[in-house]
Amino acid sequence: MTGVPGGGIAFVAGSAHPELAAAVAAALGVAPWPATVGRFPDGEVQVELREPVRGRDVFLLQPTSPPVDDNLVELLLLADACRRAGAARLTAVVPYFGYARQDRRTRGLEPIAARVVADLLRTAGLDRLVAVDLHSPTVEGFLSFPLEHLTAVPLLAEAVRRDVPADCVVVAPDLGAVKLAERYAALLGAPLAIVAKTRLGPSQVKAEDVIGDVAGRTPLIVDDMISTGGTVEAAVKAAVRAGSHADFVVAATHGVFSGACAATLAALPLRRLVVTDSVPARAGAPEADRVSVAPLLAEAILRLHRDAAGER
Amino acid sequence: MTGVPGGGIAFVAGSAHPELAAAVAAALGVAPWPATVGRFPDGEVQVELREPVRGRDVFLLQPTSPPVDDNLVELLLLADACRRAGAARLTAVVPYFGYARQDRRTRGLEPIAARVVADLLRTAGLDRLVAVDLHSPTVEGFLSFPLEHLTAVPLLAEAVRRDVPADCVVVAPDLGAVKLAERYAALLGAPLAIVAKTRLGPSQVKAEDVIGDVAGRTPLIVDDMISTGGTVEAAVKAAVRAGSHADFVVAATHGVFSGACAATLAALPLRRLVVTDSVPARAGAPEADRVSVAPLLAEAILRLHRDAAGER
Amino acid sequence: MTGVPGGGIAFVAGSAHPELAAAVAAALGVAPWPATVGRFPDGEVQVELREPVRGRDVFLLQPTSPPVDDNLVELLLLADACRRAGAARLTAVVPYFGYARQDRRTRGLEPIAARVVADLLRTAGLDRLVAVDLHSPTVEGFLSFPLEHLTAVPLLAEAVRRDVPADCVVVAPDLGAVKLAERYAALLGAPLAIVAKTRLGPSQVKAEDVIGDVAGRTPLIVDDMISTGGTVEAAVKAAVRAGSHADFVVAATHGVFSGACAATLAALPLRRLVVTDSVPARAGAPEADRVSVAPLLAEAILRLHRDAAGER
Amino acid sequence: MTGVPGGGIAFVAGSAHPELAAAVAAALGVAPWPATVGRFPDGEVQVELREPVRGRDVFLLQPTSPPVDDNLVELLLLADACRRAGAARLTAVVPYFGYARQDRRTRGLEPIAARVVADLLRTAGLDRLVAVDLHSPTVEGFLSFPLEHLTAVPLLAEAVRRDVPADCVVVAPDLGAVKLAERYAALLGAPLAIVAKTRLGPSQVKAEDVIGDVAGRTPLIVDDMISTGGTVEAAVKAAVRAGSHADFVVAATHGVFSGACAATLAALPLRRLVVTDSVPARAGAPEADRVSVAPLLAEAILRLHRDAAGER
Amino acid sequence: MTGVPGGGIAFVAGSAHPELAAAVAAALGVAPWPATVGRFPDGEVQVELREPVRGRDVFLLQPTSPPVDDNLVELLLLADACRRAGAARLTAVVPYFGYARQDRRTRGLEPIAARVVADLLRTAGLDRLVAVDLHSPTVEGFLSFPLEHLTAVPLLAEAVRRDVPADCVVVAPDLGAVKLAERYAALLGAPLAIVAKTRLGPSQVKAEDVIGDVAGRTPLIVDDMISTGGTVEAAVKAAVRAGSHADFVVAATHGVFSGACAATLAALPLRRLVVTDSVPARAGAPEADRVSVAPLLAEAILRLHRDAAGER
Amino acid sequence: MTGVPGGGIAFVAGSAHPELAAAVAAALGVAPWPATVGRFPDGEVQVELREPVRGRDVFLLQPTSPPVDDNLVELLLLADACRRAGAARLTAVVPYFGYARQDRRTRGLEPIAARVVADLLRTAGLDRLVAVDLHSPTVEGFLSFPLEHLTAVPLLAEAVRRDVPADCVVVAPDLGAVKLAERYAALLGAPLAIVAKTRLGPSQVKAEDVIGDVAGRTPLIVDDMISTGGTVEAAVKAAVRAGSHADFVVAATHGVFSGACAATLAALPLRRLVVTDSVPARAGAPEADRVSVAPLLAEAILRLHRDAAGER
Repeated sequence: MTGVPGGGIAFVAGSAHPELAAAVAAALGVAPWPATVGRFPDGEVQVELREPVRGRDVFLLQPTSPPVDDNLVELLLLADACRRAGAARLTAVVPYFGYARQDRRTRGLEPIAARVVADLLRTAGLDRLVAVDLHSPTVEGFLSFPLEHLTAVPLLAEAVRRDVPADCVVVAPDLGAVKLAERYAALLGAPLAIVAKTRLGPSQVKAEDVIGDVAGRTPLIVDDMISTGGTVEAAVKAAVRAGSHADFVVAATHGVFSGACAATLAALPLRRLVVTDSVPARAGAPEADRVSVAPLLAEAILRLHRDAAGER
Repeated sequence: MTGVPGGGIAFVAGSAHPELAAAVAAALGVAPWPATVGRFPDGEVQVELREPVRGRDVFLLQPTSPPVDDNLVELLLLADACRRAGAARLTAVVPYFGYARQDRRTRGLEPIAARVVADLLRTAGLDRLVAVDLHSPTVEGFLSFPLEHLTAVPLLAEAVRRDVPADCVVVAPDLGAVKLAERYAALLGAPLAIVAKTRLGPSQVKAEDVIGDVAGRTPLIVDDMISTGGTVEAAVKAAVRAGSHADFVVAATHGVFSGACAATLAALPLRRLVVTDSVPARAGAPEADRVSVAPLLAEAILRLHRDAAGER
Repeated sequence: MTGVPGGGIAFVAGSAHPELAAAVAAALGVAPWPATVGRFPDGEVQVELREPVRGRDVFLLQPTSPPVDDNLVELLLLADACRRAGAARLTAVVPYFGYARQDRRTRGLEPIAARVVADLLRTAGLDRLVAVDLHSPTVEGFLSFPLEHLTAVPLLAEAVRRDVPADCVVVAPDLGAVKLAERYAALLGAPLAIVAKTRLGPSQVKAEDVIGDVAGRTPLIVDDMISTGGTVEAAVKAAVRAGSHADFVVAATHGVFSGACAATLAALPLRRLVVTDSVPARAGAPEADRVSVAPLLAEAILRLHRDAAGER
Repeated sequence: MTGVPGGGIAFVAGSAHPELAAAVAAALGVAPWPATVGRFPDGEVQVELREPVRGRDVFLLQPTSPPVDDNLVELLLLADACRRAGAARLTAVVPYFGYARQDRRTRGLEPIAARVVADLLRTAGLDRLVAVDLHSPTVEGFLSFPLEHLTAVPLLAEAVRRDVPADCVVVAPDLGAVKLAERYAALLGAPLAIVAKTRLGPSQVKAEDVIGDVAGRTPLIVDDMISTGGTVEAAVKAAVRAGSHADFVVAATHGVFSGACAATLAALPLRRLVVTDSVPARAGAPEADRVSVAPLLAEAILRLHRDAAGER
Repeated sequence: MTGVPGGGIAFVAGSAHPELAAAVAAALGVAPWPATVGRFPDGEVQVELREPVRGRDVFLLQPTSPPVDDNLVELLLLADACRRAGAARLTAVVPYFGYARQDRRTRGLEPIAARVVADLLRTAGLDRLVAVDLHSPTVEGFLSFPLEHLTAVPLLAEAVRRDVPADCVVVAPDLGAVKLAERYAALLGAPLAIVAKTRLGPSQVKAEDVIGDVAGRTPLIVDDMISTGGTVEAAVKAAVRAGSHADFVVAATHGVFSGACAATLAALPLRRLVVTDSVPARAGAPEADRVSVAPLLAEAILRLHRDAAGER
Repeated sequence: MTGVPGGGIAFVAGSAHPELAAAVAAALGVAPWPATVGRFPDGEVQVELREPVRGRDVFLLQPTSPPVDDNLVELLLLADACRRAGAARLTAVVPYFGYARQDRRTRGLEPIAARVVADLLRTAGLDRLVAVDLHSPTVEGFLSFPLEHLTAVPLLAEAVRRDVPADCVVVAPDLGAVKLAERYAALLGAPLAIVAKTRLGPSQVKAEDVIGDVAGRTPLIVDDMISTGGTVEAAVKAAVRAGSHADFVVAATHGVFSGACAATLAALPLRRLVVTDSVPARAGAPEADRVSVAPLLAEAILRLHRDAAGER
């Protein structure tokens, strides 16, 4: 049961992404809620609100990007602080949702981490979640409370439009990215190709195969996230093998950029790499243009606060 | 927390599939638990155990095949009867799990029915679920209790082996069936092709495209289930367009066969259609060979009763 | 915790009873909420809201009359859709509450179906229930959330007033109907008689006995529901045996009319049969005058929306 | 989920009824579990086990007879002590279940106390309940865990058999006691009569009416419990008015005997009053023969411990 | 999730402390909500609201002072009545919180009664708790819902100010009272001493030792509660042994005064004893000045109703 | 409900403390359960059991020492993996329990982190917790499941016995350590002193004061944990000021040693520092003798597996 709390918005920022927090606050026209969010000397989260939030419609901004466990536990403790302080409603705004890829047991002896995280969020007292381009729609079913699922695809499509020549082809680097790629293709008026990592014969090892026509075309590789860069690398190689121009644009919502990602991407013929600022930039990350999701988040916060319906 | 109940197995059959219940009971070497499972004159489920199950390790067999709501509610009431009667442990054996395809919100204003069903099963007191070839592995994450996920693929692959000529190609009729098709391909030593229903250009309507080489080959179309037959029909047409032989074998775990499925399939050049008996045969269904999952279920029941580990 | 949601009423109708839904909507002066409520080809419920209900005070109209399981599961899925879509409050309006008669274990090996249903409603996210003349007040204690219990007795008493001669006697056809019959008797200024199905001697089989004076009187048999008509039939016979006029009026809130009810009632000396429209009329039902509960339901919805107190 | 714990029975007695505890322990052939169960100077329950119960199958004996709240809270705290101490299974043996009569809202602004108590028992960690002749079967549906419902009717019927002359009639003193009375009548081979407190005419006040033939017969009034004695008094008067002998035997499972019960009953022509020892005898109670339920409880404890099925 | 209910405050008083209820109602400027709160003849709580509370922001006043179990169960049943009647929000105002001292297992075989009580309050449907000077801050962590923790220390410090000579020393009678004593010392500008009941040598029995300088000073002994008076008695003796003036003022929030407290205190050289009215005065209690917490509670109720933030 | 699972112990080690895991496994005479416990490139926990644990009595060893959030989330995911794999019972063995100090709201706007952690453990499916010398007994009440609370005090007292001269005094460095110090004093036959950080006058700042006689004595400072070393430093200074020998032994269960602890302690006149291995040694930690808790943990695991009662 939710209603419009009378006390106005309290926009509380975790420590995961101060730049994005500032941008969202500016877009909302509010100051971030005064709060201490740090660590004790032994590394335990130290959280304290500096103004009471009783009766407020609280929005907690915290991507659970790396270091994912630190950011996740901090989010849970912030939620507890707000709940015990009498928040009227508690919405987590998690532009990058960590552990989303661990959404099934493949061999039967793993956890389903994304479900665990969903249950932890409920346990900590959250009423609702706002997320951007979740790795899989599956995660919504793991949640026992409402999700507002936003997409950065229109922002990113706009950002790459000038880089997209007439001969562009949108490339989904694996089967999981097809739905996303279809949305780019529709927005950009471009055809679609798919790189499928499928074992197509009994004796063959798995190899990337390109579905759709990329020969003589300039590929736009799109994905929900870039982590080690291995998927992009394989897609580039497959596309080139299939005859595409060696001149790539890459767009992804979440620039996680872990491991040796920068080196991996630097070795590829990329003209441009565009991501959003859903994840904070870290030293050693590859160079990338960053489109801000702050307006998207701010708009969703206002819409949810007003209980108006979102376009999906 | 579960342990090995001392009181032995009670194998309780719902009314959804008496033939399968008899076969599983025979394979277990037990009689189905004496119980009245019927309907009152106004259509309400009427359930009564005729022997107490206190201390028993209860296994409830009930596919939630059509009529899905009747079978589901009957399962929930059977579970309540067993729980209140003091069952030591309560495992639902649901070879066909209805509502599994409703596992996400596509446009944002639907239910996530598969999660609702998972929660209903928990509410009714079930401790564990046994299922066969779930439409999506997603469903496991919806459950808050352990799942034993069985597969009929080896049984079906064996059943079609003699129909598979040397030039056979395993065809996944959509992207969701690729994982399943890979397992068939590995078992049969056959190459793989995928029918992708993707809009590959901005002005084109969606059309089926075949990934992989089917030209001059005999296709084996595989899927987790056949409902209206529309997906098979589209795959057949796409394969033929791509040059395959017009001589198909179709294998699927669940023969739901709804709507005009029999007519749809009758119009296609099918040499053979093989399904399991996870769903009861109904009048008007297309002719199909049926491989029994009874041994598979019986083996799982014994393994779970003994708390031995299953092969997955 | 409930409050007055700011977003106004959303009146959502399930598919169980379109006529009643239209009548309630008209009485409320609103259009039924745009929604797709149907079935997929395999019989699974297909639900989709066509307008967002975020922030709305949602009322879901759905009697769980036959086919009870279909109507029940549809209600649960509608509730999930509304909850995930951000409904501010979710009230089920269930004029006929199926499974209410299964409220105890008689021999110890049945389910308590009414409690299961109550728990399922909670699981699906309902905040409150509106029901009319529940078979037993017991059901309220099964619910973990508030119930608004309405009664159609004044409407029905008014409807039969002109049929009630001065010599009328209100007859409760079994012990469970006595409280209801007392309310009719008070409203109509008539005396009361009870048909008790009690074994009154050690060697006798059970037989209906009439308590109170019916000799030379015109009976008004009243009950909460008529299902097979067997109870009415037995009461008629007992009353006639006890000397009443063979000229009966029968009033009941819920005309479920299952099995051979029409034939059973046709064979009885009934002058008039009055029920409400809590359950949709079905082909083959006995002829009956139907008093609408639409105004009653509409009034309750408005009262609950305004959080004003109801008269009970 | 329950199984047979390996550690044997721990029979823990609350302070409500030491005599019954001793009798049950003797019947079980065990010593009551060593425990301190008392009160601190300010009246708070003071509970401490003196031996660990880890791995034990714990049975907690505590009728929630007057002082009901003291006995109830003590039971809840005993349960918590056992649960935290690692009890393998926790069964409350509550021969008299207080608050059972508050099972519905009559005017809509009361609590449903019996449901609250059921929920409190769950909250404190109980796995199962044993009760004797509950005031209403409704209570079972309030519980979310299994109930073992015992009856003392055969014991009481046996106890009064020699007082029952050939002309005996079993009298249910209100409609709620009819089911119970039928069981006495069957056991004793006696006919049945019912005292119905029903307003049988519009201008009449409510008056007791006797259904069935009591004229010239010796009544045996039976009920689940005797509290103030008012119901018995009214039944006696009604039976005498209806011509019965003024020579009554009264049998009831629970002798609560509150208020001025002793005086009320002393003024009636009772030959004999028989109750069980489900409730401790208190000073000022009317003289009554007391049949012990200790064997019944001990037998149920052993049966449940062995997970054998009970006859119901 | 809480919001400001639109329907105004309903101030419902349990039967534990009618004087305080009247004072709080007067301070709020409202009449106590019309309700029947009593006992049936057998001692069961009898609760009935006489006006509906639907949509109201309900505050339930009930200290769980002795008789603690009666007051606790009554509070739980009042909560259920309000919740089922449609209360918009349910806050328990419990100025004295019984069982707070049972907050840990000392020897490992006791209950943690304070946690049990916290869980019972949640089970009964409470959304929030208001308490005054809890025995330990630990209790807040036992609650799963927000606590508004008030303190009477400023009121009590003001009340004793005129009794405090320039040579006053605030004495914490045990280690648990040190935090409280620090607050008194700060408000009164007085130094602090602590009576520590510590075994300071291997062969010594435990003895009270005074930390800090009390010689030649007038002690003000402060504590959260006085139960049997034993702690005060030991502190007085220790202080006198340490050279303090034999002229004591004692201040405590909760005057529980159990057992032989009056006699114990009468034997001590007390100039003045000041407590609040959080607990009703009972016959046989020691004479004490009583400062009312009614304004404190009324102010908190208004603040919470308005969802304004409290000073803590 | 717990029972002795039939399948034997599965001892699963998280990655927090491999040395302790090896020692406990050796003491148990088992191999650590084969499992992959690591991190994906983006830092997400990667867990996979390599043998099924169905029917096993699983013990998960994982101190939640720094990095606390990493270790905590890993523990939760390990628990989920074991639970979904069919573990019969799931016990977390957490020798150092992080976040235990955050057990209350001091200023009203913090979280109660220890309660949140307790709830997260429940959410992940744990049945029981084993911990060593928790910072506060409060934490037990935060748990909704049984705790086995072990103490290393006898081990540590034995370890320092040879360092304890006849003139030794056990020093509790703050009020929270008094209970622990009493246990050391009793075991070593030494007197006790307390350093109390109390503001003893209105104008004074807080200063450490020593309660008890330390003059001319050799102090043994004891505490549950050493984090930054600040508490030890202040106690040393206070003791020296109070005339103790400048020759200290320090014993603590948990050597967390965060921040500049090594430098802080190096500047103090410590003869010896003894801790257990509940927390892994980290580079830059002060030199300390480490007594292993492995035998203590192994013994508890066996005792719990056998459901034998522990000595507390």
